[in-house]
Amino acid sequence: MEALSKAKQKWIRSLQLKKNRDHEGIFVVEGEKSVLEGLSVFASHLEILVSLETFVSQIPDQFHAKTFLISTKDLEQISELKTPNKCIAVFKRPEAVLLKDQFTIALDGIQDPGNMGTILRLADWFGVKQLVCSKDTVDCYNPKVIQSSMGAIYRIPVHYTDLAGYLSGTTQQKFGAMLNGTNYTKTDYPKDGILIMGNEGKGVRPEIEALIDVPVTIPRYGEAESLNVATATAILLAEIIR
Amino acid sequence: MEALSKAKQKWIRSLQLKKNRDHEGIFVVEGEKSVLEGLSVFASHLEILVSLETFVSQIPDQFHAKTFLISTKDLEQISELKTPNKCIAVFKRPEAVLLKDQFTIALDGIQDPGNMGTILRLADWFGVKQLVCSKDTVDCYNPKVIQSSMGAIYRIPVHYTDLAGYLSGTTQQKFGAMLNGTNYTKTDYPKDGILIMGNEGKGVRPEIEALIDVPVTIPRYGEAESLNVATATAILLAEIIR
Repeated sequence: MEALSKAKQKWIRSLQLKKNRDHEGIFVVEGEKSVLEGLSVFASHLEILVSLETFVSQIPDQFHAKTFLISTKDLEQISELKTPNKCIAVFKRPEAVLLKDQFTIALDGIQDPGNMGTILRLADWFGVKQLVCSKDTVDCYNPKVIQSSMGAIYRIPVHYTDLAGYLSGTTQQKFGAMLNGTNYTKTDYPKDGILIMGNEGKGVRPEIEALIDVPVTIPRYGEAESLNVATATAILLAEIIR
Repeated sequence: MEALSKAKQKWIRSLQLKKNRDHEGIFVVEGEKSVLEGLSVFASHLEILVSLETFVSQIPDQFHAKTFLISTKDLEQISELKTPNKCIAVFKRPEAVLLKDQFTIALDGIQDPGNMGTILRLADWFGVKQLVCSKDTVDCYNPKVIQSSMGAIYRIPVHYTDLAGYLSGTTQQKFGAMLNGTNYTKTDYPKDGILIMGNEGKGVRPEIEALIDVPVTIPRYGEAESLNVATATAILLAEIIR
């Protein structure tokens, strides 16, 4: 097994920038558990694998040809994580086709990587088929998103597009989380609807709001000013899917 | 208005340690929004307020006697936040009495401050009366908990106790989030029950599990390995409270 060259170390570090990841059509995964899950469910997309010598025994033989060794010190240099880890994998992105008439979550300007990752993980739990996001939504290949998605990034296709154009081009029923909508428990949800969630602070944009068929609201019984967007998504998804 | 002395700066910095916060029975809040909310709803508990000169105009007159000025540079030194902020408030903790026969969330070893804060925010939205936590649950006065609670820390009493002792001493019905329980939508919830949520990785401890009357489960429709504990709490709370 070869050592990872300085040039390749520099290349991996360059992938911390979205424009470089986008340009190459790849994404980077760190941490034992997520990397091993990727090798198991996303093997055909593996580009290269970087590993400490002590971790090699965990890597199935079939991937050794794509594995490069790295020292602890160099790994710290190219890692985005503060906590120590043992491996980094670079995967090609899946080529996803935008699905029609399938239950979809639409995100309008979600900014926080943790929220995005949690929503991906929820989608993966509840069997949602895809996410469709406005172009200003946080990059799903952001390392913090990947980390909090807990493997969902391998399974849930994420599309970035002109969200208003996408929504106005489909007849699927559109539910949106709003402040003054119907009580979310008092409406029927079709199996092929679209759940629209807005930005953490500003909510759904006016031009997206205009495209919502059924605004829904989670009633408040206490005094908090708002719910976190990921927890609101959890509550709405659980109701829609049940 | 006086400048904050070096001794007081040192004192505030010392409060980053739990043992010092506990010893003095106080907690520290950072950030404009949370501090101003505290002044509005928790005024009688204010110990001292530290502010940049530029932020003083935002502080109601009645608090000026407890306000000390600080420079941007010194504020950075005593702050726990990486993003710039303008003020820090130190509050005395409320003296909370453990309530009986009120809907309660019990936490068994939750470790992540973000999860704890999100659960507090949820409790505040849904009108939960109190949290009762095992002694190894993350400190609710941890700065990251306070930040993600979005003001809930002012309203929701949190008790740390021998959780098994507390649960075995009450006849309130106990629901626990487990892997192999009843579908959470197929059971009736009394208004005065206790919802028990376990540690992020290990779930509920065996001795707590033995005290659960109704284990409940959120069915999985997709492929994710697990749900985040805060999103699971959101889904269960929404069902219990509706």
